Amino acid sequence: MQYAYAKRMSNVRASEIRELLKLTENPGIISFSGGLPSPDLFPVEDLKKVSLAVLEKSGRASLQYTTTEGYAPLRRWVAERMNRRLGTSFSEEEVLLTHGSQQAIDLSGKVFLDEGDVVLCESPTYLAALSAFRLFECRFVEVPTDDDGMIPEALEASLRAEPRAKLVYTIPEFQNPTGRSWSLARRKALVKIAAEYRVVVLEDNPYGELRFEGESLKSAAAFDTDGNVLCLGTFSKIFCPGYRIGWIAGPREVIDKYVLVKQGTDLQCNTVGQYQIAEYLKTCDIDRHIERIRADYRAKRDIMLEMMDSLFPEGVQYTRPQGGLFAWVTLPEYLDAREILAECLKEKVAFVPGGSFFPNGGHQNTLRINFSFAAAGELREGIARIARVLERHIR
Amino acid sequence: MQYAYAKRMSNVRASEIRELLKLTENPGIISFSGGLPSPDLFPVEDLKKVSLAVLEKSGRASLQYTTTEGYAPLRRWVAERMNRRLGTSFSEEEVLLTHGSQQAIDLSGKVFLDEGDVVLCESPTYLAALSAFRLFECRFVEVPTDDDGMIPEALEASLRAEPRAKLVYTIPEFQNPTGRSWSLARRKALVKIAAEYRVVVLEDNPYGELRFEGESLKSAAAFDTDGNVLCLGTFSKIFCPGYRIGWIAGPREVIDKYVLVKQGTDLQCNTVGQYQIAEYLKTCDIDRHIERIRADYRAKRDIMLEMMDSLFPEGVQYTRPQGGLFAWVTLPEYLDAREILAECLKEKVAFVPGGSFFPNGGHQNTLRINFSFAAAGELREGIARIARVLERHIR
Repeated sequence: MQYAYAKRMSNVRASEIRELLKLTENPGIISFSGGLPSPDLFPVEDLKKVSLAVLEKSGRASLQYTTTEGYAPLRRWVAERMNRRLGTSFSEEEVLLTHGSQQAIDLSGKVFLDEGDVVLCESPTYLAALSAFRLFECRFVEVPTDDDGMIPEALEASLRAEPRAKLVYTIPEFQNPTGRSWSLARRKALVKIAAEYRVVVLEDNPYGELRFEGESLKSAAAFDTDGNVLCLGTFSKIFCPGYRIGWIAGPREVIDKYVLVKQGTDLQCNTVGQYQIAEYLKTCDIDRHIERIRADYRAKRDIMLEMMDSLFPEGVQYTRPQGGLFAWVTLPEYLDAREILAECLKEKVAFVPGGSFFPNGGHQNTLRINFSFAAAGELREGIARIARVLERHIR
Repeated sequence: MQYAYAKRMSNVRASEIRELLKLTENPGIISFSGGLPSPDLFPVEDLKKVSLAVLEKSGRASLQYTTTEGYAPLRRWVAERMNRRLGTSFSEEEVLLTHGSQQAIDLSGKVFLDEGDVVLCESPTYLAALSAFRLFECRFVEVPTDDDGMIPEALEASLRAEPRAKLVYTIPEFQNPTGRSWSLARRKALVKIAAEYRVVVLEDNPYGELRFEGESLKSAAAFDTDGNVLCLGTFSKIFCPGYRIGWIAGPREVIDKYVLVKQGTDLQCNTVGQYQIAEYLKTCDIDRHIERIRADYRAKRDIMLEMMDSLFPEGVQYTRPQGGLFAWVTLPEYLDAREILAECLKEKVAFVPGGSFFPNGGHQNTLRINFSFAAAGELREGIARIARVLERHIR
């Protein structure tokens, strides 16, 4: 049988990260490749109590179908948390629970993108957002980005040049893959420009709670008066990714569209996960839990930077993230991170080459390091191994 | 802000069933509307043990990210079960776990449908499949269908008339909404015609395990030698819908495409649910569990038919399903089931008017009755109430 796939399938390719994840499952490989939280921090003991309590109190409801919008107590918690932390003012009805924030990205493509529409994004940006949007046959415009976020003049120029611009996709806190955060001024500028050019901003914020130091800033959505900004979030990094529960929040009119689209897509999020997370939030102390994650990742970040500072050869640059899961390394231009990875795999250490984070190609001299997953000792050893490989390749 | 939604959004409307589900949450309403399993049968006590065992044995893995393809032991179980029950010969690698079979329908649209492509379906067919496909801007051709399934000559005529036919969507066992099943001859004819016209068949089988009497038939896929048939299934009706775990099985080449598309869509199915179901299958007796479901629904089906036989006025026809969750009622042509529903809601009983199960409209004199969710006493009382309303409206 010769299958007649849809035209959009010509845009689909295997994600370098997901394929790597498989490779790095081999025991003995120190992996800095996936965006995996540290499993040592999962609240396994608490979840035993939580699972039993849910089955005891709401066994039938937690195992049955529920509404597409999601479990009301959980939507309420999400709205209140965002409002308190990020300066937004969402109501429970303005939150839709999704199967990870990844699904919120996918649904955004479905709701907004026609073939040939343009998504503006940071340069580089989150790889799996590119995979999601690509299925809607859009084009990508990379907006020049520095340590403070997208450069407003460049964003405006892009919007002027691209009348089919529909979405601006951004991760303003501890961005994936760079670990960089936007300044407050840039967030405000983004909202102002979005309103002027009537474009929707997807403010993806999976890592914002994981700040190690410095001041927490308000979300861009906090300055949005016209309804341009939709906020994405997830329990994956502050709780456990295995539940696949995330969300999107925005004006009711837009969220209602997302609800209709999610109905056709998978009916609803898994009920069991929604109930367990809600019960955890009610009976356990998530703030203390997040503080433990922060402390752990902060220590790992310090180890990583210490090792890089002392071992990485001159000519190698890297970000110093104030939070999140990732650091971004820039090699001398004559090096190709894919070749460095091939060498590193022989030394049993892995990372993700940076080229695929740029939708329009190039930048093969970059790479992403995840510092949350590996244990401290592995971090030391792994960075040392990468440094040895780099030493051999730097002129 | 004036939102510039994608063109496909003009095809999106609220699902009558989902909106009704909200209405019928009012206490005191006897609801035959949703396709809900009986929550009394959920194995709550077993799941307490299962949840603890998973957290004990694989706490970290069950809460972490996993592969897009899904948890290997569960994929293996699915392949083996299908092969034993349905006469197929799938390997574990030919199964992708999805967030309910609903997601398998959505992914099928993504993988195969371009704007203007044609989906052939039974007449009537599953409402939420229409919602899923509609987002890919396809057209629907309803293939004339009788008590034995799609009429082969009519299917061939449709395929000849529609060169853009891409998918044949069908539920050959205890179909939603009619409760009817295809004969073996029709299944074989379907496969033969699909191969001849090089069209992909989606054989959706959420209810096949719930047979009350009569002989279990092989799946259409069992006769497929060319790779035309993809099989969809779910744990929702034989276990619990709250996990949102279903699957699609087919030739490796096609499943590989689905995996790539699922990566961008939501990365993977929830890990917790996959591990819990796998543990349940390992340590509990799902066959005995399914036998309990069968016995319960069989008894309810009998009560429903008994009540209909004795109380429904002449001129009202209904199917006598040998399994599944639904019966299909055809009223005299001059009646509109939506008006009957309005009357019934005053009597505090609900069903789904049948018109929306026909993608191209019409058939407003039909309705669907779900007999799995309500308790036996409610079934008696609810059918009696509907009968009273019908009495008042039948000339």
